[in-house]
Parts: sequence; C-alpha cells; structure tokens
Amino acid sequence: MRTRASVMSAAAAAFQREGYDRSSLARISKASGMSVGAVTFHFSSKEELANAVDRKGRSVTLTTVEQACAEPGTALRRLIGLTLHLARLMEEDPWVSAAIRLARERPQVPAWSAVWLPTVNELLDLASENGELRAGTPVGDVATLVEHLTAGAEVHVMYHRTDDDHESAVERMARLWCLILRGFSVDPSGVEPVTD
Amino acid sequence: MRTRASVMSAAAAAFQREGYDRSSLARISKASGMSVGAVTFHFSSKEELANAVDRKGRSVTLTTVEQACAEPGTALRRLIGLTLHLARLMEEDPWVSAAIRLARERPQVPAWSAVWLPTVNELLDLASENGELRAGTPVGDVATLVEHLTAGAEVHVMYHRTDDDHESAVERMARLWCLILRGFSVDPSGVEPVTD
Repeated sequence: MRTRASVMSAAAAAFQREGYDRSSLARISKASGMSVGAVTFHFSSKEELANAVDRKGRSVTLTTVEQACAEPGTALRRLIGLTLHLARLMEEDPWVSAAIRLARERPQVPAWSAVWLPTVNELLDLASENGELRAGTPVGDVATLVEHLTAGAEVHVMYHRTDDDHESAVERMARLWCLILRGFSVDPSGVEPVTD
Repeated sequence: MRTRASVMSAAAAAFQREGYDRSSLARISKASGMSVGAVTFHFSSKEELANAVDRKGRSVTLTTVEQACAEPGTALRRLIGLTLHLARLMEEDPWVSAAIRLARERPQVPAWSAVWLPTVNELLDLASENGELRAGTPVGDVATLVEHLTAGAEVHVMYHRTDDDHESAVERMARLWCLILRGFSVDPSGVEPVTD
C-alpha cells in the first residue's frame, strides 16, 4: 500500500502544478520513482488515478467542514470560520488543491464546492432561524457571497502559490469579512446597483 | 483581412471552449473553413494566434472600463457599475471570455484583472478623497473584495455557460452588492473573524 500512496502523492503534485492534460502516467511514475508498470498495477489509467486523488481531496475537505461545524459560537460565526478553513485547505493541503484543479478541468466531475455548499446552506438556515440575520436578508444571497469569496481565494492561491512573501488566503479572507461586516459606504442605498 | 478575422473568431471560440492545450491549429483551421496553410500565412503558431485573441479581449475590456469611468455618479457608484460591466463582458463577449481563459492557462501572460484593477484603485482613491467611504476603511480591502467578486463571476460563467436558464452573472453581481451594502448580520462585531 506504500507504493499506492506514493503514486497518489506524486499524482496530486503533478495535477495541481501541471493540470490534468499535461500530466502523464509516465511523468507521474518517474516522479514517484516507479516504473509505469508498477503504477498501472495500482491505477489502470490516468483517469482512475485522478479519481482517487479527487476522492481524497473531497474527503479531507469533508472532515474539515465537519470540524468547523462543531466549533463553538453562533451559526454565522461558524460559517465565517468555515470559509477561513476552506482558504487554508486550498493553500496548504496538496489533496485539496489538486482536487480543486481536477474538478475545474474535468467538466464531468462535480465542482469542489459541492462538498461544502450544503453545509453553508445549513448554517445559514440555522442563522436565520436563530435571528442572527437582519430581517429581509435573502439567505441565498449570503451563500452566493461565500461562493464568490471562495472563488477569489482560489484564484489568489493559483497565482501566488510560488511567491514566498504573498499574503495568505486565510488573512485575505479575514480582511474581507471584516470589511463586509463593518460596511464601507457612507451612503449604501445611494450606490446600490439597479439592473434592468 | 477578412480571413484573419475569421481565423481569430474561430480561435477565440476554441480557446474559450477547449482551452489552450486542447485547441490545435488544425482544428481551428477546420472550424474557420480554411486550410492550415492559409491560417499559418496569418499566424505562424498557435501561440501567436492566442496572443492576438488575448490582445483583442484586453482591448475590448479597456474600452468598457473607460466607458464605465465616464458614466455619471459618485466614484463608488461608477466602481460598482464597472463590476457589472465586467460580469457582462465575461458572459457575453467572445474575445473577453477567451482572453480570461488564455490568461489563466498561460502563466507567462498577465492576469486579465491587470487591465481593470488600476482603474478600480483610481476610483477607490477618488471615493476616499470625496468622503464616500466610511472613516477608517482600507481602500485596498475594497479592491480585494472587487477581485473576489469578479473571480466568483468568472467561475459562475465557466460552469453555467451552456445552461439555458441560469442566472446571469450581472444579476448575481447586483444581488451581491445589495447584500454587502445593506449588511446582513445583526451582530457584525460579534462575528468578525480573528486570525492568529
């Protein structure tokens, strides 16, 4: 089983760095110090290997989501905490970052957000029931906001993975929540957009 | 020049749909109804063709940015209007959507946001000088928020381009601004995240 784990690690690194199309079984085998034959003993195709990495990334994510849900505090506080955990995973966890890229590049696979979006919605329903949201707040809009903030974190991580002194995605997410919660316009209703 | 334009159109469609790696000069030639020889008369390589599509997408974006800046209203209002225009371009303009994907897939090329981020910063400086922002608002945080909202729109468009009845990225962006400007937490300071 050690061989299988080494192949999966090498594959996750390749998928995250090069993407699905540019990663070949030959290169992944070389990176894991094994023959192509030894690799295909465990994974018959690149697709099967990608599926295994993807499952691992989703399973790591799900564990983190469950932990974030079990933290103390109001539902909205736990939701915000969850987004910081997601940002950390994107940045630090090799399985998760590979799974995110694999999901983007393989349209037949559900988006990575499918793992955590149901929990975001549950926490928001709870926040709404508990009176944590202002009257009239559409719960779905807050879920959409979380999706956009997370997408921004993903792009940030993608562009700055190799920089040594970039701001962490977690700090960036925390800054955004502070800005959003405090508000920043002196005339909010005067600048609201109107679409036809 | 009509040939050149047809090749560029076919290339933009291919790059947007299939990505850079999976698009070949042979397939682009076929889609534009020309021989590979006729295509390479205008563009010596796929890279050169991608560069031309990328330049066109950036130039369309720049024109829109300049128009959004010239609209009436406060700086913050124009900034929010600009984000709606960017969402529309992502969704509707074939050059822009191709340029966005090409920039994501070719790390040597600057991100698409490099076209509009300087204007976002100028509008925010103006909003700050004109007293449109609450005291103590870090201007850079609002710029970061704009980047995240735009990244979210990009992901939304990418996943729903082929759906017939999906919500438009423009409406989604407008919904988010309304939510953010109105605020949604009954206890904003109690849910602010703290990072170590």
